[in-house]
Amino acid sequence: MTPLGGERKQGTVCIFGTGDFGRSLGLRLLQAGYEVVFGSRDPKNTSLVPQGSKVMIHTEAAQMAQVIFIAIQRDHYQFLTSLTSSLEGKVLVDVSNNLKMGQYPQSNAEYLSSLVPGASVVKGFNTVSAWALQSGALDASRQVLLCGDEPKAKQAVVDIAHSLGLTAQDRGSLRAAGELEDIPLQLFPLWRLPLWVAAGITAFFFFYLLVRDVIYAYVEKDQDISYRIMITLANKVFPIVALVMLSLCYLPGALAAILQLYRGTKYKRFPDWLDRWMLSRKQLGLLALFFAILHVIYTFIISIRYNVIHTRDTEVIKQIKDNQSEPFDNAEAWATDSFLSLGVLGFSMFLLLGITSLPSVSNTLNWREFRFVQSKLGYLTLVLCTTHCLLYGWNKFLKPSTYKWFTPPGFMLCLVLPCVVLVLKLLLSIPCVDSRLTRIRNGWERPTRSRSMERGTAL
Amino acid sequence: MTPLGGERKQGTVCIFGTGDFGRSLGLRLLQAGYEVVFGSRDPKNTSLVPQGSKVMIHTEAAQMAQVIFIAIQRDHYQFLTSLTSSLEGKVLVDVSNNLKMGQYPQSNAEYLSSLVPGASVVKGFNTVSAWALQSGALDASRQVLLCGDEPKAKQAVVDIAHSLGLTAQDRGSLRAAGELEDIPLQLFPLWRLPLWVAAGITAFFFFYLLVRDVIYAYVEKDQDISYRIMITLANKVFPIVALVMLSLCYLPGALAAILQLYRGTKYKRFPDWLDRWMLSRKQLGLLALFFAILHVIYTFIISIRYNVIHTRDTEVIKQIKDNQSEPFDNAEAWATDSFLSLGVLGFSMFLLLGITSLPSVSNTLNWREFRFVQSKLGYLTLVLCTTHCLLYGWNKFLKPSTYKWFTPPGFMLCLVLPCVVLVLKLLLSIPCVDSRLTRIRNGWERPTRSRSMERGTAL
Amino acid sequence: MTPLGGERKQGTVCIFGTGDFGRSLGLRLLQAGYEVVFGSRDPKNTSLVPQGSKVMIHTEAAQMAQVIFIAIQRDHYQFLTSLTSSLEGKVLVDVSNNLKMGQYPQSNAEYLSSLVPGASVVKGFNTVSAWALQSGALDASRQVLLCGDEPKAKQAVVDIAHSLGLTAQDRGSLRAAGELEDIPLQLFPLWRLPLWVAAGITAFFFFYLLVRDVIYAYVEKDQDISYRIMITLANKVFPIVALVMLSLCYLPGALAAILQLYRGTKYKRFPDWLDRWMLSRKQLGLLALFFAILHVIYTFIISIRYNVIHTRDTEVIKQIKDNQSEPFDNAEAWATDSFLSLGVLGFSMFLLLGITSLPSVSNTLNWREFRFVQSKLGYLTLVLCTTHCLLYGWNKFLKPSTYKWFTPPGFMLCLVLPCVVLVLKLLLSIPCVDSRLTRIRNGWERPTRSRSMERGTAL
Repeated sequence: MTPLGGERKQGTVCIFGTGDFGRSLGLRLLQAGYEVVFGSRDPKNTSLVPQGSKVMIHTEAAQMAQVIFIAIQRDHYQFLTSLTSSLEGKVLVDVSNNLKMGQYPQSNAEYLSSLVPGASVVKGFNTVSAWALQSGALDASRQVLLCGDEPKAKQAVVDIAHSLGLTAQDRGSLRAAGELEDIPLQLFPLWRLPLWVAAGITAFFFFYLLVRDVIYAYVEKDQDISYRIMITLANKVFPIVALVMLSLCYLPGALAAILQLYRGTKYKRFPDWLDRWMLSRKQLGLLALFFAILHVIYTFIISIRYNVIHTRDTEVIKQIKDNQSEPFDNAEAWATDSFLSLGVLGFSMFLLLGITSLPSVSNTLNWREFRFVQSKLGYLTLVLCTTHCLLYGWNKFLKPSTYKWFTPPGFMLCLVLPCVVLVLKLLLSIPCVDSRLTRIRNGWERPTRSRSMERGTAL
Repeated sequence: MTPLGGERKQGTVCIFGTGDFGRSLGLRLLQAGYEVVFGSRDPKNTSLVPQGSKVMIHTEAAQMAQVIFIAIQRDHYQFLTSLTSSLEGKVLVDVSNNLKMGQYPQSNAEYLSSLVPGASVVKGFNTVSAWALQSGALDASRQVLLCGDEPKAKQAVVDIAHSLGLTAQDRGSLRAAGELEDIPLQLFPLWRLPLWVAAGITAFFFFYLLVRDVIYAYVEKDQDISYRIMITLANKVFPIVALVMLSLCYLPGALAAILQLYRGTKYKRFPDWLDRWMLSRKQLGLLALFFAILHVIYTFIISIRYNVIHTRDTEVIKQIKDNQSEPFDNAEAWATDSFLSLGVLGFSMFLLLGITSLPSVSNTLNWREFRFVQSKLGYLTLVLCTTHCLLYGWNKFLKPSTYKWFTPPGFMLCLVLPCVVLVLKLLLSIPCVDSRLTRIRNGWERPTRSRSMERGTAL
Repeated sequence: MTPLGGERKQGTVCIFGTGDFGRSLGLRLLQAGYEVVFGSRDPKNTSLVPQGSKVMIHTEAAQMAQVIFIAIQRDHYQFLTSLTSSLEGKVLVDVSNNLKMGQYPQSNAEYLSSLVPGASVVKGFNTVSAWALQSGALDASRQVLLCGDEPKAKQAVVDIAHSLGLTAQDRGSLRAAGELEDIPLQLFPLWRLPLWVAAGITAFFFFYLLVRDVIYAYVEKDQDISYRIMITLANKVFPIVALVMLSLCYLPGALAAILQLYRGTKYKRFPDWLDRWMLSRKQLGLLALFFAILHVIYTFIISIRYNVIHTRDTEVIKQIKDNQSEPFDNAEAWATDSFLSLGVLGFSMFLLLGITSLPSVSNTLNWREFRFVQSKLGYLTLVLCTTHCLLYGWNKFLKPSTYKWFTPPGFMLCLVLPCVVLVLKLLLSIPCVDSRLTRIRNGWERPTRSRSMERGTAL
């Protein structure tokens, strides 16, 4: 990726600022065949700008190009007021980012626009990193988000983005600049709530099972089985969290359906908490899958664990000493094999769900296919995993010894939510309920309220 | 994502219909900086349209914009004939979908065009869902497919799509509208045949092995080993299906090569069944991978199963009672470890194949790399998995007890197809055959037939 | 995907050459609504061109269209000099590829341009395969890379690419043509070095452990444990290679930071070997993940291996014969469970890293998120895996029997590199070092050298 010589016919672009971003952008523009002119206070210091570009003082540089990238920090924008006449009618691209969200009351781009009212300011390129421009590898996003008030100015910037091999997305008027400036500062905003939920559920079940298993054994039987925390306990907590999180994916959909049935229309907004919940479903599901994967791996290593091997050997030795062998229990064989088999099938469906939620895979699905996978396959997964959990306790529900200190075991607690979701789904699938819901979702509204006749005819 | 105020300079777009899709589209257009005017029979009812848009009667609304989205159902298109003069010269975007394929003999867009011959009809946006437009999340496809007879009209719609952050793909003249209207109704069309094939093979081997294993034991030995259905049997069927499906991926390529050699040219179309088969290879392979994953998971849980543990314990107890311990068999250790190791390597290669068939990964490969992976790595996988299967039966082929009721075991049956494919591939790799095939694939044709001289020079 | 009839209004495109690529392209253009005219020496032979296209002699065909695809081999370009007048002012798209890199001193497109100086030559479409155009499936890349000296000519080709549903990326002037012609001939260029490194480390540790384990047992104890090569040995080599490769991912970053601290600036280029190493980090990490996956699978099948089962049974039988049972060792239980648990957690973090490096996933991350994952999560993975390895040997470091033939076991050797990386990282995280590094990375330079004042103000 060396600068190409030859005749450059792409036109000239000006960059104010010879910092990291400015120079990376300059190099990339040169590679794409543009002439690049840097605006600088000290044009003689050309040591750092990419080979093939020129450095001039700001006023001269501004005259060379229609589009000027302002690659300097907001604190230094003030000096641009002295160049107002040179910048008249130019397109100024504000590529700046702030150090933290809401650092300034006004977005950088709007501030720039107020300083140089005669120029058309376009916010853009701030979501692309200097490193990405330099390396050309563009592992991170290759999408340029931009906004501005002047369509022609935006088009000029879109054209430059395209010729650099980037895609561009117009985000509207300059008012959206603040939003764009916040984007590079975000750290997984959609994942926060689901992560807190997962952490909370994990912590609750961890301490609940710690008390019931380890502390109970210590207090009541004077046994030290604390070593079980590392795997045995973890492998009880993880599947529980996975199942609870999976049902939390499907609960909001059921609640929304009930709300729509109750209101008799889909044209009323859901309460905010439900809206947020609905939008977190993908993240909830992926976290559930992560916990399920941990559960599966912990299960696979059960039989190479020291204590498992020791317990088995002890049992065999005991059987021999007592001179009696345990008879084969056909019911036990059926139950445990079914339990394992359902777990495997549930997990494989869950994996499928996870794979189809990869952006590049979901992009190849049409709307009907996407809903088929996320809804039909999702409920199948939930049914399989819930049954897997039910079979785990098939012969434990009625045993008094299960209820240590009068508390139910973890797997019973965690069955509550998925069973509620499945019952709700079952009720919503009753033909008369389902058909009404379908009509509501196609735009029908309960006739008691007066609505325009046209409603029914519209898509 | 709230409607942005400020000066909007993107121009005005009109939408006929205030249904779900119309309003979602309107909101999105507002966010992108467009003025939005809804055409309605009852313009006073503005309660449901997005804030910031206007509602007018159809004729007035039509005058406000050059591009009009027709977001009403086909059944109500008839009333548009009354607006013919207002719609003269406008771009009408037909966004409608049908409830099932081939519902009408004529596509909706062509019907619309026949009703309003003075307007330029563009079919488009029907593959984007209202929900995707609303949420902005666009988990499903962000590609707008469109077609129409008038390039300028199409360009206007492409521009709107781009400013909404969507990509656009031109699918030709309005004749393609029927095809576009079918797309949202499709449910995994490419997966149907491979799924049926997989289901057929699975069912066949399931019943074959059920008879040979469970029913044979019941009839001949009076043993009830039905519990083995859940895992033991499944873990015999799944690897068999995986191996058969994997060889079905590579068989059509070999058949095609033989056909090309026989015909002496590549410029004759393959028979339809071969064409369809070739196009299903990716799906066949991914299904094979799915079965292989199931096989692997079932294998990992072998040693935590009740009956496996019981059998082992019984054996140890028996050895002790008989006061003899089984000597270590070096050949058995080599054979079983090799068998497992080949399985692991084959599976890991298979996983690699699966990962490279993810759209975003295969997009980063050039043609040569893609073929290297799918062909070289694919055959390596097939060789490893076939050898894995052969080693499984290394000491069973000659034992009479293997052939219960004079039937060969499942793994022998399933070896037939992969061995055929590998032998064919070997024959096609003989230098003289391979060089002729390469020449044919580069455009060479058997000289007995008269061909234009130019052929050889063309790419 | 049959050619659509109806009025075509997309304009006419000419293709010279009726070979495989020419015809595939022609068919696709027809489908997108273009008129297609083939230029041929023998226009009467129209049997092979797609239905709906025309065939004319070259001069006539050239007159029909502004854009002419030259789909003939470089060896036959010479005859185009006879058409110079017909090609005057036309856009010639050179789609040719060579058989090997650097076959000709001059790129095909530049050669074409020198033959027909009156035409605007655009290099492009050579990275798209005929098969991809034919099938429409476009499993491989749908990106058209192009370059050329004339912006308008390039735009015409970009427009055609877009209407075929392809994306286009401008790679600058015609000088870049050689680079574009090399692209389809590349075979994983970025993977070569990491693959060689992986092969080297694997070979070294394989032979080292072969000597220490198998040959040592044969020589010193006269035992034949060669069967262990298949799994036991492999499962020692793979985790070692995985851990070494993972630390090789993070070592160059630490070295670069030290270099920047030493130099007091980030504006000096790194030495070439460090640059190459930095650019290989993704591949090194993915290979490490592949070895980690192999290690995990080999671990999962430990307890179904013949020799493992035999050893266990023998031990139980021995315990019974000696009439003593081994007491339960709590420390051993803690150590082995912690060891396994850290491995599981490390592996799951590693999987997360792998998933976020899928192009479609990393595209959805902003720069801050991408760095968070690759740096924070990456180091967490390294810490977990290193501790996993340390715990493996917790009670082996001081045992003399560990040091067979006075050599350290493999897991000790492999701990060197990750420990070095973690110590370096720890040193770089000391607040005073870290703050200086941060300042340097934000553009600060050591004041002893004279720099332009502007530096500090630029982005």
